[in-house]
Amino acid sequence: MKKDLEFVLQQQKEIMLLAGTGALLEWDRETYMPKQGIMNRAEQAAIVSRLVHEKVVSEKFYGALKRLVKPRTLRKLSAMHQFIVKRAFKDVRKARKLPPEFVAEMARTTALANHAWVEAKQKNRFRLFAPHLKKIVELKRRQAKLIGLEGHPYNSLLDGFEEGMTVEKLRKTFSYLKAELLKLLEEIKQSKKFREQGKKLFRKKFPVEKQKKLCRLAYGLILPAAESRLDVSAHPFTTTIGRHDVRITTRYHEENPFFSLSATVHESGHALYELQLPKQFEHTFIFDAPSLGVHESQSLFWENMVLMNEGFWDYFYQRFCKEVREELKGLSRKEVLEKLNEVKPSFIRVDADEVTYPLHVILRFELELGLIEGKIKVNDLPKLWNRKMKQYLGITPGKDSEGVLQDTHWSIGHIGYFPTYALGAIYAVQLYKRLLKEMPSARKQIANGNFEPVKGWLHKKVHCHGRKFTAEEIIWKATGKNLDSEGFVSYLREKYSKIYGLK
Amino acid sequence: MKKDLEFVLQQQKEIMLLAGTGALLEWDRETYMPKQGIMNRAEQAAIVSRLVHEKVVSEKFYGALKRLVKPRTLRKLSAMHQFIVKRAFKDVRKARKLPPEFVAEMARTTALANHAWVEAKQKNRFRLFAPHLKKIVELKRRQAKLIGLEGHPYNSLLDGFEEGMTVEKLRKTFSYLKAELLKLLEEIKQSKKFREQGKKLFRKKFPVEKQKKLCRLAYGLILPAAESRLDVSAHPFTTTIGRHDVRITTRYHEENPFFSLSATVHESGHALYELQLPKQFEHTFIFDAPSLGVHESQSLFWENMVLMNEGFWDYFYQRFCKEVREELKGLSRKEVLEKLNEVKPSFIRVDADEVTYPLHVILRFELELGLIEGKIKVNDLPKLWNRKMKQYLGITPGKDSEGVLQDTHWSIGHIGYFPTYALGAIYAVQLYKRLLKEMPSARKQIANGNFEPVKGWLHKKVHCHGRKFTAEEIIWKATGKNLDSEGFVSYLREKYSKIYGLK
Repeated sequence: MKKDLEFVLQQQKEIMLLAGTGALLEWDRETYMPKQGIMNRAEQAAIVSRLVHEKVVSEKFYGALKRLVKPRTLRKLSAMHQFIVKRAFKDVRKARKLPPEFVAEMARTTALANHAWVEAKQKNRFRLFAPHLKKIVELKRRQAKLIGLEGHPYNSLLDGFEEGMTVEKLRKTFSYLKAELLKLLEEIKQSKKFREQGKKLFRKKFPVEKQKKLCRLAYGLILPAAESRLDVSAHPFTTTIGRHDVRITTRYHEENPFFSLSATVHESGHALYELQLPKQFEHTFIFDAPSLGVHESQSLFWENMVLMNEGFWDYFYQRFCKEVREELKGLSRKEVLEKLNEVKPSFIRVDADEVTYPLHVILRFELELGLIEGKIKVNDLPKLWNRKMKQYLGITPGKDSEGVLQDTHWSIGHIGYFPTYALGAIYAVQLYKRLLKEMPSARKQIANGNFEPVKGWLHKKVHCHGRKFTAEEIIWKATGKNLDSEGFVSYLREKYSKIYGLK
Repeated sequence: MKKDLEFVLQQQKEIMLLAGTGALLEWDRETYMPKQGIMNRAEQAAIVSRLVHEKVVSEKFYGALKRLVKPRTLRKLSAMHQFIVKRAFKDVRKARKLPPEFVAEMARTTALANHAWVEAKQKNRFRLFAPHLKKIVELKRRQAKLIGLEGHPYNSLLDGFEEGMTVEKLRKTFSYLKAELLKLLEEIKQSKKFREQGKKLFRKKFPVEKQKKLCRLAYGLILPAAESRLDVSAHPFTTTIGRHDVRITTRYHEENPFFSLSATVHESGHALYELQLPKQFEHTFIFDAPSLGVHESQSLFWENMVLMNEGFWDYFYQRFCKEVREELKGLSRKEVLEKLNEVKPSFIRVDADEVTYPLHVILRFELELGLIEGKIKVNDLPKLWNRKMKQYLGITPGKDSEGVLQDTHWSIGHIGYFPTYALGAIYAVQLYKRLLKEMPSARKQIANGNFEPVKGWLHKKVHCHGRKFTAEEIIWKATGKNLDSEGFVSYLREKYSKIYGLK
């Protein structure tokens, strides 16, 4: 038993160290790698991820875990080791359901597909990507069978990103959300404020150097510099190289200072989660979040609940003005905050506001379901996409690069991922409401630039559990509620009724 | 046979990809890693280098190579595959002479020793480092026995850095060099110019931002930006992540603009070698230099032969002035060049000029020989060091951190490495003399800022061979001479006689 446990811990440690190495290969590719390093980098990443996979599914690892999870052996372990062993056993058993040939085929297919997607998006030609997506959908349908969870085949894909979540639960949540958000959006569109918004303009250009200072300031409020970095990449992301080495990136648009700031704060929320995971779980499979939905709840907590709220601007507005006073052309704190909270249907998901964002997700969820069920053909996607955009947001993208081709997810085989964005938004609201109940001073602390109490609260409620519990368990423990879409809708209605003067 | 060859090529490819991954882990540690990432990084680097080592010494790899090198099999292979197989067989056989326990012990010992050395240097206390160095010397003596080359035990250590080089050859070269350089140095010291040098001073500060521009300019003359990077680290270095991804670093000293510039050009020379290795050798053991001496010949070619010569300043002086005109306080092109070529005995090897540099190396070589022969005790090193410094350079370091503790090499187990620096200096002169003979226009090309012909020549003479031949073979092919210390001395004598007005 002792030997098995030692091996299992050592194996997890090696897997986690190699995974962190793989993360560095990716981080570097997106930030500092010389352009021509790309082919070599792809091969380096492939070999590291193959080594990780081989270690995860190895007979020896599985054998040791199988012996350890036997009830009579398991109960002799410490509580923490029990969690670790059970978690690893579950992960390994699932990973072993996919034969090595399948994993290799998926890797090859997505490598080509991603390449094709980049070109298709650039050239705005869906048909360059379509054959690759067909292949991916086929593989994903096969994967669903191989994983073989109960209920809808999509459940087996969803489970890879949001363990325990099902189509049945999502359909209920999303149909409610869709109806409510469409209603709210309609009311907003009818308001005088909506018709007038966008009239008060900034200057056209916010120099990148000034934006950098602002982002660095915001980042410094949330993350410790000795354990993190802020860099630039085409698409903002967070990555964990090790327990004390978590890195975020942002992107600067000269015409919009809020994009870089929102991205910085969003990724800082992800990174804070990683940095506040319990240190005693380091180098094990429970040194992680339980799901992408919960992870997103942390980024959106900081982006939507903190950055887009009054308290933050009480603290930040003067500092903001110090850098970009001229560019602001006299916009007041209230006006800046309103600008940040503008609701406006847009083609691009990552540019969407709080109200329309879930509709972007629901649209994708519905199309993915159709693809996996075999009811939707890949070739029909552009048409269906545009039809749904018109139906939900009232706008029709002029080109596929701003429509069906906008996201990278499908090209890398991530079907079943999008719903986690909406779950994160709901969880974030639940957590924020709970925070205000348990710590009424939170807003004031933020207004004073003291983020420590809020960080401590998030640690106690979410981060400290690592991956010991499921997403639903953690949210229930933290907020006393399951996924609360009613609470989410009432939060949006309250907030935006005030902003848009709705009845 | 075909299967063996395929396996051997695939195994080498995986080894090289993982080695490049290890290089990225190190590069990142020295440049961008958040401070607290250090412990995790050490573990990541250890596991990657263990995986590389396991692959190198694996039975399967050795078995396949053994079958392939049999003359009857070997001659059926293409010429290139013959080189690759023979090279890999030799490397693997040598690597397998060190048992895994020995490799692990060396890794543990040097990890601790390097840590101790950093502290010892900081606190200027040799005795903090001494016990670690004793252990390393013991291990190195064991390693020499395990490798077991003919002749002096030091040969087996030297061979790891400069294959084929021996104590017997070095003693001859170094005793000649020592006598000649001491004589030349003495003459220089007696000159009027020497007594007066350093009187004409720059300003005290050259802003780092200006130095950065100058370094970027020099770097851009030698290296292609799409395949390389220039960053900052405490100690300048070059590292190869992949065929099209070679990175260099430099360091900025506000009071001395030549340090960063020399380091940049020096490392650019190393990097150019790596970038100009023949692409058909990629992912094999012959995609490399044959020795550190030859590698150093390339960095010193650019640093000593190009940067410190008139042609370069014909091109660069105006550009230099554009950035630092004020700081130069009116120094002419000739005066700048003289400044760059000042001979002045100094405590620190990396600050040394062309004339005294080999004396720093010879001092270390003599001490290393004594340690490996068991004739010198670690505890006596500081005393012996200072005595030799006085004897060779006429100065005595005031503290060990500027004496015996200055270099990191011994702390990481690199005994037998220093001589390669002097070999590089000699080879660089040989190559430069040959270049001027074969391409009399080279100086003019450089003066015009056109470095392509020189780069092409180096490729044809040195880089294109990769590791197909030994260092001596490559130098002989390129220059028609073996290691030419007489030519080196006559070059120095001629150059510095002119500068210092010697007879």
